[in-house]
Amino acid sequence: MFPPVKIVLSPRRPRQRGAGTQRLSASFVFNTHARDGAARAGEISTPRGNIRTPAFMPVGTAATVKATHPRDVRALGADIVLGNTYHLMLRPGAERVAALGGLHTFMNWPFPILTDSGGFQVMSLSKLRKLDENGVTFQSHIDGSRHVLTPERSMQIQDLLGADIQMQFDECVRMPCSPAEAERAMRLSLRWAERSRKAFGSQPGRAAFGIVQGADVPALRIESAKALADMDFHGLAIGGLAVGEPQATMLAMIDVVQPHLPEDKPRYLMGVGAPDDIVESVARGVDMFDCVMPTRAGRHGLAYTRFGRVNLRNARHAGDPAPLDPESPWPAARDFSRAYLHHLVKSGEILGMMLLTSINLAYYQELMAGLRAAIEAGGLRDFIAHAKEGWARGEAARRGGA
Amino acid sequence: MFPPVKIVLSPRRPRQRGAGTQRLSASFVFNTHARDGAARAGEISTPRGNIRTPAFMPVGTAATVKATHPRDVRALGADIVLGNTYHLMLRPGAERVAALGGLHTFMNWPFPILTDSGGFQVMSLSKLRKLDENGVTFQSHIDGSRHVLTPERSMQIQDLLGADIQMQFDECVRMPCSPAEAERAMRLSLRWAERSRKAFGSQPGRAAFGIVQGADVPALRIESAKALADMDFHGLAIGGLAVGEPQATMLAMIDVVQPHLPEDKPRYLMGVGAPDDIVESVARGVDMFDCVMPTRAGRHGLAYTRFGRVNLRNARHAGDPAPLDPESPWPAARDFSRAYLHHLVKSGEILGMMLLTSINLAYYQELMAGLRAAIEAGGLRDFIAHAKEGWARGEAARRGGA
Repeated sequence: MFPPVKIVLSPRRPRQRGAGTQRLSASFVFNTHARDGAARAGEISTPRGNIRTPAFMPVGTAATVKATHPRDVRALGADIVLGNTYHLMLRPGAERVAALGGLHTFMNWPFPILTDSGGFQVMSLSKLRKLDENGVTFQSHIDGSRHVLTPERSMQIQDLLGADIQMQFDECVRMPCSPAEAERAMRLSLRWAERSRKAFGSQPGRAAFGIVQGADVPALRIESAKALADMDFHGLAIGGLAVGEPQATMLAMIDVVQPHLPEDKPRYLMGVGAPDDIVESVARGVDMFDCVMPTRAGRHGLAYTRFGRVNLRNARHAGDPAPLDPESPWPAARDFSRAYLHHLVKSGEILGMMLLTSINLAYYQELMAGLRAAIEAGGLRDFIAHAKEGWARGEAARRGGA
Repeated sequence: MFPPVKIVLSPRRPRQRGAGTQRLSASFVFNTHARDGAARAGEISTPRGNIRTPAFMPVGTAATVKATHPRDVRALGADIVLGNTYHLMLRPGAERVAALGGLHTFMNWPFPILTDSGGFQVMSLSKLRKLDENGVTFQSHIDGSRHVLTPERSMQIQDLLGADIQMQFDECVRMPCSPAEAERAMRLSLRWAERSRKAFGSQPGRAAFGIVQGADVPALRIESAKALADMDFHGLAIGGLAVGEPQATMLAMIDVVQPHLPEDKPRYLMGVGAPDDIVESVARGVDMFDCVMPTRAGRHGLAYTRFGRVNLRNARHAGDPAPLDPESPWPAARDFSRAYLHHLVKSGEILGMMLLTSINLAYYQELMAGLRAAIEAGGLRDFIAHAKEGWARGEAARRGGA
């Protein structure tokens, strides 16, 4: 019980740079060392530590990965977390975080941090938005205060926060949308990309990423990717997906975009996703992911495991002494029974949210480690097939006594 | 940052039994090894581990010390936790817990557990109570279901849960109450004490405690203590205090009762208290405490520290980079700034509750360790004076730059 958790405190030494390496700055380096089809395994080296790719970034919206001690976020296998510019600019404020030593110090997470640009959440959360060429004026969802976000201000905020990877300010449209609307937003996002990149300037050891837009229109996606590839970004993201469209649409857009993304820069699929979305996207050459699913699900009684998604609210768990996964590398998945987790969830106990969030993050990171190892071994197809088989039949097999 | 926490997994070997030792059963032994005035320092040995006294027992109401991983409850210094019979009998149910291997296994806490009898919470939480000589009939505050608690059923539930220390079923009256009402309830509690003790029977390695009642009437308290001292309990509790009366009343009742409690049995002051209540009670010979204060306060933005109680909601913390207590033995009190804790509390983040709960439990356990060491060194009076001085001037001194 309760073995001490091994925690890597000092950034590992960067790997020797190989053929696929591009030196992006004095110390921000992306290095791929294995391929399997379109998938690649690699490592991003930064002054704050290395990021093994494909990587899953837990979401630390308001300077905390919800319900999880940063010590555990690290122990669970995260090399990097994501912070939300929109939330942090409203509370506690970017200038305040900067005065307190930056986001790493503030949230006691000394490892790499990526911040989004705020654009997506201005659209999804704020009130009374007004968008024009310059940027977006909006009211805070917290206190109604008025704010302006422009490409320049978004990059300034991300700089104040001290993010290691900073995202361009963009406009993300919801799908379905008309091709004309998709085109307008994509072109605006390209102009904002140029302004964002210029505002980022040169920050040794830090990176700026552009974001491909274009909704579900292949020609727009290709145009966006090509234009961004010609700009001096250190990585490129695919945005505007996982916003309600079918998985097939999302994967088709990755397939369309991928050939036009530079081989030597990391590719980040924003806001994705379910485990099945992740494995399919890794197979299509994506290197980085973020998603609230594991943390949000954990606060709502849902567990992600090798056996698929398990709803702990279900009465069938009430008397079940078995843990969620006796073979998990994470103690909470082994040391607490389904009956206990069910009890905690039904009772609204915070410990239930804590344990399930950690179990979900453990599964996500275990999945990423498995994907990396499979790519290195040239066995990605088999790994994915095996994972899907487990999700599909796992709990059913358990009930049958397997 | 994040040093591995030392966790004691195996129960320590019992001390050599000294002059003050009484062998209560094959393996439940209370041993005092130091005195300072009325205060004593000692150790309760049980098959599940030893309990250093004076001891503070974190409250694990619904089979969880709220917002705290059991690994951390242990690392914070707890030798024993308390479980609530009332809550556990309603959800998940005593028979269910027993079928799942007992409360220790259920909540993944292999160390000693004390359960209350349910009597107090039937009075404070349930609906539509009916009390008679036999026991109490009541409706659950959760789903309105009808239940009966008697001395026999309470002890049966505590046995099903597998508690190491089981409390007699009693009636606790609120103060102020009439002397006649206090007398009626005290005498009923004495009759229930006999039935409880009989129902407990002989359980090697486990203990049954009686509870002194009598409100704020000295003669009733003395009568209750004397009668209970003549029964075959393994420890005695003082109940019905910290229910709204002034501290002076509480301390006066301890002074009245203490000479009539057996020297060789542990004394437990139920539901107490604030740090000041604890130190004053230890000085009067109390060995065990439980209270929701540190955990409840932690969920409401309040921290207990050497500098007194600190309200993290207060705007003066918003830009303060200092930790709550740079000299705390608990990392969370040192590694996170007041500004960050303020941000978490204002944002309603679960991590804020987690960190403050742990900081409070750390302070409580540090206080108990200090009391034990002071008693052993014969310096209790100075220790208490020093602690009170810190509570009174701490934050004021900080603001002044001290």
